[in-house]
Amino acid sequence: MSRTRFDSMECSIAQSLDQIGDWWSLLIVRDAMRGMRRFGEFHESLGISRNILTQRLGRLVEQGVLERRDVGQHGTHWEYRLTAKGRDLFPVIIALLQWGDKWIYFGENLPVVMRDRATGRPVAPVRVTDADGRPLELRDVNLSQRPEED
Amino acid sequence: MSRTRFDSMECSIAQSLDQIGDWWSLLIVRDAMRGMRRFGEFHESLGISRNILTQRLGRLVEQGVLERRDVGQHGTHWEYRLTAKGRDLFPVIIALLQWGDKWIYFGENLPVVMRDRATGRPVAPVRVTDADGRPLELRDVNLSQRPEED
Repeated sequence: MSRTRFDSMECSIAQSLDQIGDWWSLLIVRDAMRGMRRFGEFHESLGISRNILTQRLGRLVEQGVLERRDVGQHGTHWEYRLTAKGRDLFPVIIALLQWGDKWIYFGENLPVVMRDRATGRPVAPVRVTDADGRPLELRDVNLSQRPEED
Repeated sequence: MSRTRFDSMECSIAQSLDQIGDWWSLLIVRDAMRGMRRFGEFHESLGISRNILTQRLGRLVEQGVLERRDVGQHGTHWEYRLTAKGRDLFPVIIALLQWGDKWIYFGENLPVVMRDRATGRPVAPVRVTDADGRPLELRDVNLSQRPEED
C-alpha cells in the first residue's frame, strides 16, 4: 500500500494521520520547523526521490499544513511555509522527538538538541495536564467514545 | 513500499517513526491506551486483516512498546499490554488527538472525549514549555543538530 486511508474512521487521531499523509510528511513538517522552506533543502535533508517529495509537499499544501508561495524576484521560486495548522503540530513533533530521545537514544548523544532561544535552557518534557496544569498520566484519563448525550 | 525505513537517519523523530512502524501501529497504541488488550478487540476496532494486525502487534512487541502475556487459565490466551515505553507515547497520542479535534473537527462533535477521571473535566491542550512551565512557541525553540562540542 502506498498510503493507508483512515478517513472513514471516526477518530481525531486516525483523521490526523490521514491528513498528515505518511511518515515522510511528518519529517517534512519537522524540517519546516527547523527553518527549511525550499524544495532543495527538503530534498537534501530527506534523501527521497524528487517525485515522492513533490507528492508529499503537494498533499501537505492541499491539507493546509503548508502554504506554497512564489518568492522569486526573477522567475518563479517556490517556498513552502507552515500555516497556523502546520505550526500547531509543534507539540506532536516535540513529544515524538522527546520519546525518541528517551527510549531510543537513552538521553545520550542526542542528534538534535532543543533549547529555549531566550535562555539557552533545554525544553521541558511535554506532558498531558489538567486545566490547572497538574500532570495527568494515562491512567488518570478517560478516553471514551462520544456519549449519546453530553 | 510496505514500511519506510528511517533507521539510518540520525534524528529522534525519524527513529521514533521507524520504531513505531506505521500508522496502524500508532492506532494499536491508541486502542491499548483505551484499555484494549486482546487480538479480537484490536481486530474489531481497526478492521484490518488478521495478517497485518499480527505483523504490527509482533513488531510493537519486538520494539518493546507492547508486551505479550499468556493469561489463559485453560489453554493459551494472549494479552497485549503497554510497557513503560509504550505508555510514554501518551503525550504523542494526546497531542495528535487534540490537533485533529481542533483542525479537522473544529472542536465540534468530537468522536472521542477525553476527561480527567478524578474531576470529569476536559484535558488541557498539550503544550511545549520551558523548565519553569512557561509555554514555548515554535519560534522560541532552537532545533539544531548536535554541536561538535557541548
